[in-house]
Amino acid sequence: MALVVEKTSTGREYKVKDMSQADFGRLEIELAEVEMPGLMSCRTEFGPSQPFKGARITGSLHMTIQTAVLIETLTALGAEVRWCSCNIFSTQDHAAAVIARDSAAVFAWKGETLQEYWWCTERSLDWGPDGGPDLIVDDGGDVTLLIHEGVKAEEEYEKTGKFPDPTSTDNPEFQIVLTIIKDGLKENPKKYTQMKNRIVGVSEETTTGVKRLYQMEQTGTLLFPAINVNDSVTKSKFDNLYGCRHSLPDGLMRATDVMIAGKVAVVCGYGDVGKGCASALKQAGARVIVTEIDPICALQALMEGLQVLTLEDAISEADIFVTTTGNKDIIMVSDMKKMKNNAIVCNIGHFDNEIDMNGLETYPGVKRITIKPQTDRWVFPETKTGIIVLAEGRLMNLGCATGHPSFVMSCSFTNQVIAQLELWNEKTSGKYEKKVYVLPKHLDEKVALLHLGKLGANLTRLSKDQADYISVPVDGPYKPAHYRY
Amino acid sequence: MALVVEKTSTGREYKVKDMSQADFGRLEIELAEVEMPGLMSCRTEFGPSQPFKGARITGSLHMTIQTAVLIETLTALGAEVRWCSCNIFSTQDHAAAVIARDSAAVFAWKGETLQEYWWCTERSLDWGPDGGPDLIVDDGGDVTLLIHEGVKAEEEYEKTGKFPDPTSTDNPEFQIVLTIIKDGLKENPKKYTQMKNRIVGVSEETTTGVKRLYQMEQTGTLLFPAINVNDSVTKSKFDNLYGCRHSLPDGLMRATDVMIAGKVAVVCGYGDVGKGCASALKQAGARVIVTEIDPICALQALMEGLQVLTLEDAISEADIFVTTTGNKDIIMVSDMKKMKNNAIVCNIGHFDNEIDMNGLETYPGVKRITIKPQTDRWVFPETKTGIIVLAEGRLMNLGCATGHPSFVMSCSFTNQVIAQLELWNEKTSGKYEKKVYVLPKHLDEKVALLHLGKLGANLTRLSKDQADYISVPVDGPYKPAHYRY
Amino acid sequence: MALVVEKTSTGREYKVKDMSQADFGRLEIELAEVEMPGLMSCRTEFGPSQPFKGARITGSLHMTIQTAVLIETLTALGAEVRWCSCNIFSTQDHAAAVIARDSAAVFAWKGETLQEYWWCTERSLDWGPDGGPDLIVDDGGDVTLLIHEGVKAEEEYEKTGKFPDPTSTDNPEFQIVLTIIKDGLKENPKKYTQMKNRIVGVSEETTTGVKRLYQMEQTGTLLFPAINVNDSVTKSKFDNLYGCRHSLPDGLMRATDVMIAGKVAVVCGYGDVGKGCASALKQAGARVIVTEIDPICALQALMEGLQVLTLEDAISEADIFVTTTGNKDIIMVSDMKKMKNNAIVCNIGHFDNEIDMNGLETYPGVKRITIKPQTDRWVFPETKTGIIVLAEGRLMNLGCATGHPSFVMSCSFTNQVIAQLELWNEKTSGKYEKKVYVLPKHLDEKVALLHLGKLGANLTRLSKDQADYISVPVDGPYKPAHYRY
Amino acid sequence: MALVVEKTSTGREYKVKDMSQADFGRLEIELAEVEMPGLMSCRTEFGPSQPFKGARITGSLHMTIQTAVLIETLTALGAEVRWCSCNIFSTQDHAAAVIARDSAAVFAWKGETLQEYWWCTERSLDWGPDGGPDLIVDDGGDVTLLIHEGVKAEEEYEKTGKFPDPTSTDNPEFQIVLTIIKDGLKENPKKYTQMKNRIVGVSEETTTGVKRLYQMEQTGTLLFPAINVNDSVTKSKFDNLYGCRHSLPDGLMRATDVMIAGKVAVVCGYGDVGKGCASALKQAGARVIVTEIDPICALQALMEGLQVLTLEDAISEADIFVTTTGNKDIIMVSDMKKMKNNAIVCNIGHFDNEIDMNGLETYPGVKRITIKPQTDRWVFPETKTGIIVLAEGRLMNLGCATGHPSFVMSCSFTNQVIAQLELWNEKTSGKYEKKVYVLPKHLDEKVALLHLGKLGANLTRLSKDQADYISVPVDGPYKPAHYRY
Repeated sequence: MALVVEKTSTGREYKVKDMSQADFGRLEIELAEVEMPGLMSCRTEFGPSQPFKGARITGSLHMTIQTAVLIETLTALGAEVRWCSCNIFSTQDHAAAVIARDSAAVFAWKGETLQEYWWCTERSLDWGPDGGPDLIVDDGGDVTLLIHEGVKAEEEYEKTGKFPDPTSTDNPEFQIVLTIIKDGLKENPKKYTQMKNRIVGVSEETTTGVKRLYQMEQTGTLLFPAINVNDSVTKSKFDNLYGCRHSLPDGLMRATDVMIAGKVAVVCGYGDVGKGCASALKQAGARVIVTEIDPICALQALMEGLQVLTLEDAISEADIFVTTTGNKDIIMVSDMKKMKNNAIVCNIGHFDNEIDMNGLETYPGVKRITIKPQTDRWVFPETKTGIIVLAEGRLMNLGCATGHPSFVMSCSFTNQVIAQLELWNEKTSGKYEKKVYVLPKHLDEKVALLHLGKLGANLTRLSKDQADYISVPVDGPYKPAHYRY
Repeated sequence: MALVVEKTSTGREYKVKDMSQADFGRLEIELAEVEMPGLMSCRTEFGPSQPFKGARITGSLHMTIQTAVLIETLTALGAEVRWCSCNIFSTQDHAAAVIARDSAAVFAWKGETLQEYWWCTERSLDWGPDGGPDLIVDDGGDVTLLIHEGVKAEEEYEKTGKFPDPTSTDNPEFQIVLTIIKDGLKENPKKYTQMKNRIVGVSEETTTGVKRLYQMEQTGTLLFPAINVNDSVTKSKFDNLYGCRHSLPDGLMRATDVMIAGKVAVVCGYGDVGKGCASALKQAGARVIVTEIDPICALQALMEGLQVLTLEDAISEADIFVTTTGNKDIIMVSDMKKMKNNAIVCNIGHFDNEIDMNGLETYPGVKRITIKPQTDRWVFPETKTGIIVLAEGRLMNLGCATGHPSFVMSCSFTNQVIAQLELWNEKTSGKYEKKVYVLPKHLDEKVALLHLGKLGANLTRLSKDQADYISVPVDGPYKPAHYRY
Repeated sequence: MALVVEKTSTGREYKVKDMSQADFGRLEIELAEVEMPGLMSCRTEFGPSQPFKGARITGSLHMTIQTAVLIETLTALGAEVRWCSCNIFSTQDHAAAVIARDSAAVFAWKGETLQEYWWCTERSLDWGPDGGPDLIVDDGGDVTLLIHEGVKAEEEYEKTGKFPDPTSTDNPEFQIVLTIIKDGLKENPKKYTQMKNRIVGVSEETTTGVKRLYQMEQTGTLLFPAINVNDSVTKSKFDNLYGCRHSLPDGLMRATDVMIAGKVAVVCGYGDVGKGCASALKQAGARVIVTEIDPICALQALMEGLQVLTLEDAISEADIFVTTTGNKDIIMVSDMKKMKNNAIVCNIGHFDNEIDMNGLETYPGVKRITIKPQTDRWVFPETKTGIIVLAEGRLMNLGCATGHPSFVMSCSFTNQVIAQLELWNEKTSGKYEKKVYVLPKHLDEKVALLHLGKLGANLTRLSKDQADYISVPVDGPYKPAHYRY
Repeated sequence: MALVVEKTSTGREYKVKDMSQADFGRLEIELAEVEMPGLMSCRTEFGPSQPFKGARITGSLHMTIQTAVLIETLTALGAEVRWCSCNIFSTQDHAAAVIARDSAAVFAWKGETLQEYWWCTERSLDWGPDGGPDLIVDDGGDVTLLIHEGVKAEEEYEKTGKFPDPTSTDNPEFQIVLTIIKDGLKENPKKYTQMKNRIVGVSEETTTGVKRLYQMEQTGTLLFPAINVNDSVTKSKFDNLYGCRHSLPDGLMRATDVMIAGKVAVVCGYGDVGKGCASALKQAGARVIVTEIDPICALQALMEGLQVLTLEDAISEADIFVTTTGNKDIIMVSDMKKMKNNAIVCNIGHFDNEIDMNGLETYPGVKRITIKPQTDRWVFPETKTGIIVLAEGRLMNLGCATGHPSFVMSCSFTNQVIAQLELWNEKTSGKYEKKVYVLPKHLDEKVALLHLGKLGANLTRLSKDQADYISVPVDGPYKPAHYRY
């Protein structure tokens, strides 16, 4: 795609695949709004006072319909927004189109190259000559990374006059990042430094991004406050447990149409994602075997009537294999060779290295037969039997289905809105230093509260006397920080 | 589509939408075969002896991938086969293509007109000048109907010289049937009579078809023996209960992506289909309310922790409504008006008249917004709120998902193969009169048996002593006819 | 116990263990009444018209609190009642006491000898010099047996002058029966013949009794009409499936206090009882393995995610073994020797011969350690490890817990009341011949209906139009006879 | 009971109800050992090295069979032990008898008066003239309280010469405590001070005790290190969630025999205890309504398909009410009056003040009918209808059943053993200050590990490479402190 910024009739910049899909996007946004009560309640509660008046927000997060509802919540609260996706495949083009047309500057399309991806990221930060965003919504930390690397390079340049050297790294993606920074440096040697000075803070969506932030906090290199949205209860439990419980069978059924009842399924890992997956498979009538390294999680699996075995124990017996670990090398090609014909292998954990895709692709004589996009049968030459790999080993709920449903994302994204509000409201109070914070529990509870009405729930209210008896405020927070839910 | 029969290079007739989809069809057949152990076992067990050698089979049954595996099982056992679909929408064009290319004479495509539908049906019976099929596989009874009406008309014609009069009926579909018969009569006044004389019997797949057969049996007008496959345990329980338990959530998720957990779902009817649906929704985290007319089924629902209310009780509280009754007028437009905004309304029971589609379509000022094919939002003028109707009120698991999974269809279709074998093997023995029979229980048990190995089951074997103790043969049948499973 | 009939102050006969428990019995009856809405509704509906006015009912059925509510329903409808238990262990002495004191002639106590048991049975038929009962409520058929054997002996005596010879049989129980008949014959050579002439019919509670009745029907020896209550849906499904789902874990917990979660449980047999047991164990967090001889039931188990193996496959892995088959020799002593230390072995199927108690008791060197009544540890000499056998291999839900809960028994017993009413109302109409009948479906439905209100259910009502559409009456019956529920 | 210490033939002191129950106690211990693999593994792993050689342990914890296995694990590791119960009702007399006879000095019986209770507690600390215990196992903190109050009084006495004044408090129990201390002070004015000086630390079992410890830590009055066993994952989740999931239905069934299926159950509170209860009730076929004050827990309930209402909303509809909150005044007498006849009301949370027992007992004209011990029907004068209260509002799983099963207690108690070992091994290292500590996560994981083998689990082992990838040691701990499981 020609990397040229386009403009709407009102002059707002954008770059999306197909503006004609905007109407379809609007229809789907309207459906999603009904399923995202947390975000809609934020509009009702905060909209009138326009708390983000004057705030510029840059977001880098999968440009989907649900994200569109998030963006329009931010703008409804007064913010000006620029957005890119945090993944080259995850944009829904109709969502990008309608937001570009109606609400914010969007630079995203499904199937970007890495070059295009970083061009879009750069655009999301391009608030014109006089600087960058006030606030960042990040997912995976790429925007945060770019700014931190940019500032580092500018400091080095100021000290030594040296430009960053893209050839100094083998990582092709990081070469692109360094090139962008180098080019920026030539234009404006204070570009990222000015940006950093303006930034009030970032709220980060995922484990990966949060991990990077804590590392920067520990090394003292974090340039602005960060809120770890990922570890809110209403984010982590809902996204991982309930989200995957929904989207794992959805992905399996769309990709393979296979009957789950009666099958033997192996779930590798019994953290929140694994718990959601195992529950969904058991409910659908599969017999579920769990593999675990952590004896506590293993004992939890046993308490639910699940068998705990090693992958090796179950390899030749199972019909469905799901990795949920966040670790690598969980299912190797040597394992896949031992599986039953047409065993299904998929990953809903983290990166595609949970499954040894490289080993599979380079296996001598292996034959790949694409049944349909995201559903491949790989046939081994020795046995002529094959296995079915979903989404090329990447997240199968995104690749084969539509990811988490709107209601789950409403929980996540309401945390985002509240985190952004918290950062913005406290921008001058000094409450937040250059550290990583989780949302205070009463805000986590507030996120939950905003989702109860939609589901017809009536909450009980503590009397003052009862609240005193258990030493909590009448309005919460109700639990100590270490409470496990 | 021009109604012209085409021929393969080997001279076999066909009419399908797109022959180029045959390869894709073959891929999907290969996947399905692994999930259809009953049919594959029939090939192994009976293939070598070619029991259908010399038998002509005409089938009228949804021309899907699963049906393709059925057809190729029949041909693997020696039969010659001609096929049409029993529904204008249900053909999978890649399945039709590959069967037409490789295995049988197929006349079917997705989206036939009624005229085209009956042309295809006629072709499936067109075995050339010297008569019709030996055996019929029917689903809904349209082929059986055509032959019976044909014979009736020929008898009338022989007696009175009168042709059937298409204008004698208001039913547009029956007008087509009469026209076909009339045209046939002009060519050959014994066409259907000759056909009837050759036919050994029919095996019928569904409730509707079975109902017609019993009516003909009672009125003494049934022209050949019929086996009621529908009421085999391995058909009815598996198709209705386990099939819908799988395909209801599949359809909901594909059509709407809505989170099922936390929602209130109303399941109208708690027969086998309703039991499967309620179970699936409960497992997915919905709160399920059942409506029932039958106090026994209602009590069963209560024993599973489900609430039993009238539709009226639940109408304004529920998020999802599913009809499973096989009756009509279950959810009327006056009900729909009272529902919450974006309540989902769908039918997995029988005909689209379970939902008052006519009332909805003709409601003054109602607005239909098609979100995507098979997913419509209908907005009422008074409230500006809307409901979401799936598959235009027709079977949502077919319209929004891919119907029952292969494993379930393997149970159904193994019953078909065994019923066809039984009819053919006993064609001269006089075992079957012009009546409707259910498969003997030991054959029903055999169908189940053929599916156990795939799921890794080991069956226990009665000793002679034990068998005598409970007065059953060592090899079954194990249960009395009235046993309820 | 001295076998002497006692009399209440009102002159009613009885023989129970301890009259002082009557007050406690009344308290428990009052609790049970709230849980037995079907019986209480019968009192409300039929009580005023006293339909049983003048009817003498003899019952032989476990003399428990629930049976007490049945008896007082019969008397509330006008009947005069005499009662014994149908099992030497099953009487609840406080239930016997209160009924003896307040409502009917009872002859029953916990722990009868066989001699005592048949004495009680005889008393229940002893309506004085001028004959026997009008109606019989039977469970297992012992009263029916006694009368049939009595009549047979009297006919033989009339023909040949020969008395029955108790030494003609090896069966010690049948020796007692013959002795009773012989003694009766000496007193009154037409005793049972007169009785038979008066009897309107019997309603039979269980499989065993029903089996005997059908055999008598087939051999033409049945002396009066019989209603098979056992095969009402509201009896068989509720008693077997829901009853055992409740009482299996209850018995396990009371007997052993063992944690079910995390354990491996083998359920032998997957009929209704097995389905209830497997469901309960799975819900409680066990991993359940099913053994089956019937491929259909096996496939049903697989569809619920249960593993189907042979006992041998699972013998050394499982912690809990439950027999539910109704067959014999399911778990042999050779199996028990291979079990893990402290594996629990119990039977909830039928007779204690499902478990090879004889083989266990006679195993050389085996040591029995009674932990508490009904809970024995049996230690094998070779391994010094042991297994825990519940209720000496008899029904563990009766032996270790309190049997089925009142609500389940209300379903069974409402069938009994309605069957008795039907027999009595039709006593002169000729509707019932000397055959075995199941209750007509509309009465089965009525039983269910009477239980809905207690559980807060609202039934939907068919319109006339809808009823016609599916060809059923508006008020039911709603299903064909072969419907499987 | 006469408060006189008795002695075994070996000279060990004790005071129990009935020494003749010792053999029965031994039988039950042998059963329990098989279900307590964590404790038995500790014996195998640590027994040979006798790590507690020379250690005196005083325990105050329900003197049950499971505790007996704990005590004999401590003695198997070399400790000398004195024990009392921490609750006047919770002792199992056969457990006390066998331990007194075989293993440790026990002072406990079922149904102690408060006076007797504190006499027993004092005896458990009476290690003779030269001082007290080295280690304390506490449950609820009464032993810890006695020592702290003792030391406080001795310090006051040393300063002012004043004895503590039992009349200074209205609390009758605290009057007893002060009297004991006063009497001790007269004998030895350094009794508790000497004791304190010897004590290495305490491990505390429950929330209540832990709460007190944290308060003492905060006020700087804690006299020795304390390990909070309660908040180990393997304690809190297993005890609360899995323990109550087992013992709630057990208690309901033993107390009332009521059928759970079909009933409406209200669970007040959806913490771990509430989650376990709601799960058990739902599985058993009840329709479950949850009341909650915390929106996060409420949302979790909704995700499981449970309805969230206030008590008021559900009061007249429900059949079973369970309090699980740890708060007070959850169900008031004004609520109970509105309930259905024979609604069951019980508490499995904490103290009996969750249910307004005082309000009930003092309600004018209310009538209490004891059905059987721990099961009372309370009849209101206005309506003549009644409710059924279990265990007089105290913990129903202890009062009506046998508390948590052995396996759950094995998790708790293995934490205790490991905590005691940790305190003892580090007694001179200075690792533990006068603060409250939770067990380090790798020990929590170890507790889980020791329970896997019994349940047939095979744990997966990380490779070094994988461990590095996710930045954890190969042998754990595997999760960060805040991980929620």
